[in-house]
Amino acid sequence: MANHHPIMTKDDLAAFLDREFPQMHAGGRSYSLEEIGPLTARVRMDYHERHLRPGGTISGPSMMMLADLALYAAILAHIGPVALTVTTSLAFNFLRKPEPRALIGECRLLKLGKRLAVGEVSIYSESGSEMVCHATGTYSIPAK
Amino acid sequence: MANHHPIMTKDDLAAFLDREFPQMHAGGRSYSLEEIGPLTARVRMDYHERHLRPGGTISGPSMMMLADLALYAAILAHIGPVALTVTTSLAFNFLRKPEPRALIGECRLLKLGKRLAVGEVSIYSESGSEMVCHATGTYSIPAK
Amino acid sequence: MANHHPIMTKDDLAAFLDREFPQMHAGGRSYSLEEIGPLTARVRMDYHERHLRPGGTISGPSMMMLADLALYAAILAHIGPVALTVTTSLAFNFLRKPEPRALIGECRLLKLGKRLAVGEVSIYSESGSEMVCHATGTYSIPAK
Amino acid sequence: MANHHPIMTKDDLAAFLDREFPQMHAGGRSYSLEEIGPLTARVRMDYHERHLRPGGTISGPSMMMLADLALYAAILAHIGPVALTVTTSLAFNFLRKPEPRALIGECRLLKLGKRLAVGEVSIYSESGSEMVCHATGTYSIPAK
Repeated sequence: MANHHPIMTKDDLAAFLDREFPQMHAGGRSYSLEEIGPLTARVRMDYHERHLRPGGTISGPSMMMLADLALYAAILAHIGPVALTVTTSLAFNFLRKPEPRALIGECRLLKLGKRLAVGEVSIYSESGSEMVCHATGTYSIPAK
Repeated sequence: MANHHPIMTKDDLAAFLDREFPQMHAGGRSYSLEEIGPLTARVRMDYHERHLRPGGTISGPSMMMLADLALYAAILAHIGPVALTVTTSLAFNFLRKPEPRALIGECRLLKLGKRLAVGEVSIYSESGSEMVCHATGTYSIPAK
Repeated sequence: MANHHPIMTKDDLAAFLDREFPQMHAGGRSYSLEEIGPLTARVRMDYHERHLRPGGTISGPSMMMLADLALYAAILAHIGPVALTVTTSLAFNFLRKPEPRALIGECRLLKLGKRLAVGEVSIYSESGSEMVCHATGTYSIPAK
Repeated sequence: MANHHPIMTKDDLAAFLDREFPQMHAGGRSYSLEEIGPLTARVRMDYHERHLRPGGTISGPSMMMLADLALYAAILAHIGPVALTVTTSLAFNFLRKPEPRALIGECRLLKLGKRLAVGEVSIYSESGSEMVCHATGTYSIPAK
């Protein structure tokens, strides 16, 4: 893979996301970028009442948004702020019901090509050891 | 498949969903059940400002929630109000950027077994002819 | 979608596949192209002893190859014989155990873009009414 | 997860697979079990002429079979020789064209429940450092 190392800092990327995707904070800020590394990104989701489901579990769509965001952040960190990068596919396995605690999405890029990037995200409850959801996603990168 | 025909009416199912999943209307009601048929369900999503992304397109997570809801509704309509039915996997192909119009999710069940149900959802813009997103999902049905 | 209509005949496409992918007939010819239509293709698989599994069912890998071939045939029929078109992702739901009968894969393209094509395949046993496997796939089309 | 540790040895499992799935060696033995560990399995595929595609790359269906086998082996190693365990879904991302070398599939189980097991497989060329294919799969485990 061409660029194994991020070319944006965590702070620059967070500022870019806040500016381009203010809707991700609709209803109150809950997603935050925790770390960027070589082909990786970690994103945190603090849950609000609106993310809960009967029984106190965190909703599937909240986790899907967390995974999409972690993949998107990891890719942009390595290719720069290309807002036209688009999700072409996402696949999720829901493994366990997450308890009402913050969620952590650990993203690892598996491929970072010129036209397509592919990665996986492992989602855990904060301080939990078992994965609650696993995701893979593909993104189309526009020609320069 | 055992039950090719729905055993709940659209109104009973809508009332059940409103009661059990009030969070799906957080921020304002936008999802509504339009029709239930043999192994099918149609769900509509009216978009709000919070569902938009830069360029005026409707967000991926909104479509993912629409697909999950359409699958869930189709299954419950055929097996009855079993709230413990859970999503085990979902996979999405994002085909075209949806314009800022209501979205329609057409669900068709491919399998309705004792333990697992599988279906697909085709999402269109209202009065549009080209699919904007295709989803498949698997749900685990609790033992009686 | 630009090209709703195939630009290769079934016979030309079958000849191209035989020439470029002779391995698909390794062990004896079992896959054959049955029909090409607007955004569609139908491929047939006659089973051999080597495709069976305990209990007389047809193996998963045989169905996966059938789906890949049906998608590939549908795409090439519409864009011409571009051998460098490559599979980037495939996803399968195995719905029922297929009986030892010929399988039919019905492919429908959902998107035929300049860089990516996406389609689904529904696999049935010959003269059976229930789907045995559902697949979706994405293919990368080389720049001209 | 209930059983973090395998209850079958590699040799017992290999003997079971040879007995129950002799078809996997049709055309000549190419798949072999290399290692079983806590929630993991490693399977090797030595390629034959029949697994090659134009340009000398190894075919997608060969990798799909390798992934299915690695997942199946990992599950059986932990639950015992339950031949009725069936694949319910498989999803693949094809990342790079594998060179004509042996392939190694590293499987890790993400969930091992009473009714469903979920895992991922990372496929590498022997002595290569970049993943060529990533797979996830779900298996239904029969009630005892």
